[in-house]
Amino acid sequence: MAVRAIEWVGNETGLLRLLDQTRLPTEIEFVDCRTVPQVIEAIKMLRVRGAPAIGVSAAYGIVLAAHAATGDAESFRQLMREADEALFASRPTAVNLGWALKEMGQVIRDVASRPQEERLRALLDRAREIESEDQEMCMAMGRHGGPLLDHAKNVLTHCNAGALATAGEGTALAVIFEGARRNPGLHVYADETRPLWQGARLTAWELVQNNVPCTVICDNMAASLMKGRRIDAVVVGADRITANGDVANKIGTYSVAVLARYHGIPFYVAAPSSTFDFELASGDLIPIEQRAAGEVAEPYGVRLAPKEAGVFNPAFDVTPAELVTGIVTEKGVISPVNADAIRAMLR
Amino acid sequence: MAVRAIEWVGNETGLLRLLDQTRLPTEIEFVDCRTVPQVIEAIKMLRVRGAPAIGVSAAYGIVLAAHAATGDAESFRQLMREADEALFASRPTAVNLGWALKEMGQVIRDVASRPQEERLRALLDRAREIESEDQEMCMAMGRHGGPLLDHAKNVLTHCNAGALATAGEGTALAVIFEGARRNPGLHVYADETRPLWQGARLTAWELVQNNVPCTVICDNMAASLMKGRRIDAVVVGADRITANGDVANKIGTYSVAVLARYHGIPFYVAAPSSTFDFELASGDLIPIEQRAAGEVAEPYGVRLAPKEAGVFNPAFDVTPAELVTGIVTEKGVISPVNADAIRAMLR
Repeated sequence: MAVRAIEWVGNETGLLRLLDQTRLPTEIEFVDCRTVPQVIEAIKMLRVRGAPAIGVSAAYGIVLAAHAATGDAESFRQLMREADEALFASRPTAVNLGWALKEMGQVIRDVASRPQEERLRALLDRAREIESEDQEMCMAMGRHGGPLLDHAKNVLTHCNAGALATAGEGTALAVIFEGARRNPGLHVYADETRPLWQGARLTAWELVQNNVPCTVICDNMAASLMKGRRIDAVVVGADRITANGDVANKIGTYSVAVLARYHGIPFYVAAPSSTFDFELASGDLIPIEQRAAGEVAEPYGVRLAPKEAGVFNPAFDVTPAELVTGIVTEKGVISPVNADAIRAMLR
Repeated sequence: MAVRAIEWVGNETGLLRLLDQTRLPTEIEFVDCRTVPQVIEAIKMLRVRGAPAIGVSAAYGIVLAAHAATGDAESFRQLMREADEALFASRPTAVNLGWALKEMGQVIRDVASRPQEERLRALLDRAREIESEDQEMCMAMGRHGGPLLDHAKNVLTHCNAGALATAGEGTALAVIFEGARRNPGLHVYADETRPLWQGARLTAWELVQNNVPCTVICDNMAASLMKGRRIDAVVVGADRITANGDVANKIGTYSVAVLARYHGIPFYVAAPSSTFDFELASGDLIPIEQRAAGEVAEPYGVRLAPKEAGVFNPAFDVTPAELVTGIVTEKGVISPVNADAIRAMLR
């Protein structure tokens, strides 16, 4: 993709440039982050979003934190701990955030007593590695998942799990892009994905940029297409997958999974191993972020629901493993989905 | 309800006053229709919507057409035929429109050769009867359907099938209002109902006006609530029901029906007998209106999907009878739903 969602600009004392995804598809604007609070603001406001992209951004956020941590080992550790905690709290559901911060934490421990120049270099090197590992994982997911779409005419995706959500070509969209290269007639239905329209704004935009034919639908239209046999497969991303294969992903994913099961349509999840949380046995234990009522009731300043009505606005839902046909990882496709199969593939 | 969605103002030479539902919930504005083209514009632009309300409006539209038809019987019949055809074409899916026009057509035939004064009086009388019959049907549906919610804590509805969609208290909402009178703790989840937000804008507004506690959700959130056992019943309206019990209603209704079935939740449809189309054997034969792409891609002038992406925007979908637990009519509840049971109740 010509436009990069995440870019570290400059050397160790550089800055983190994020494509402001809230302005897409009409405006291509970037936010330059020089401090941790700026990175946190960008994550909270969804200027950068998607579990892998949040992880990569947080890793670079730690480099930014180190710019200001010029003191001795003890004060360095203290400031880095504060940055880690603040970044970790920015979004509660995606597990890649915690994973990336843990990786950076290892570097922090290793280099705390070294000169500042070395600390910065080591942290930036690890953040860059996390970014390039993510790119490689995207390619590998495409390689493993693309063939699943060889016989599909139409594939449905929900939310955005594309290049904008990762450092590479995406998770679900990496599978779909590779599917479209192998099977050039492939057409994509993109759920608009209320309340924040990541499907309409981001997924459709990425598909258009890559010349993959696509049609945007409201979330409530997918069932009707499935009934008319106009969807052959579903591919979505994930924000966290528990040890047994339960999948937390954008609100509405569970709805699509139930509809796919009812209509006998395969339902695939694409996610790198960093999305798996082996510390949680099942999806009931995943914290689900609740977001502001205004996203539902007053999008873009247009008052849709009366102020006196309540609003329910969870950012994610949990799809039980039994509804998932397969999970496409960078190491291969896990199918059927259960704790043993996941452990066998990833550990 | 204090605000009337449809009102004939004055005597035989009066006008049709419609609440402009596109402006709700923030503005209470009316459009005064003095001609058939004005009524058609209001129907097409959804200023008035809901199958029964469209039927009542079209009946009054015929009275407006007669204002200009001052000639002899032949020219009267000719002008009325033109008005009938134009009104009939204004929206293709709702069957009440055709039903109301057929009723008015009978009056037209009976009075064509009478003096203009008598023609107008007879037409207005019949239109008023259609309106008051609709009010009575709403009350009767509430009476029959209300007890179905006696043990529910939370009921889900989709789109708007309330007072705004009828001349009375609504179809689905008549059931819910009566349910809430019988079972005062009842809480309603209202699907926002993309692309036109009739659930957020209209249903939530009506519920707030009537002091029934309600929470607005995005359409893709219902499944998650069902999984958490937070929905005990679903009640929706209908635009057309075929002889076998298949139900055309707002896009997304079929999705809710599949989700309700998967979670073992009863799914009720409330509709007066005028919504049944015995000439169609099954739902495959119902014409489904396709609406403009902009409703999905650019609501309220906000560009959400890139212009290069396709858009699919059917106004309705069809729920097969086998997913419908019961149909609440003014004559009683049809359950199980099949051609014999429907005929036994309604014929």
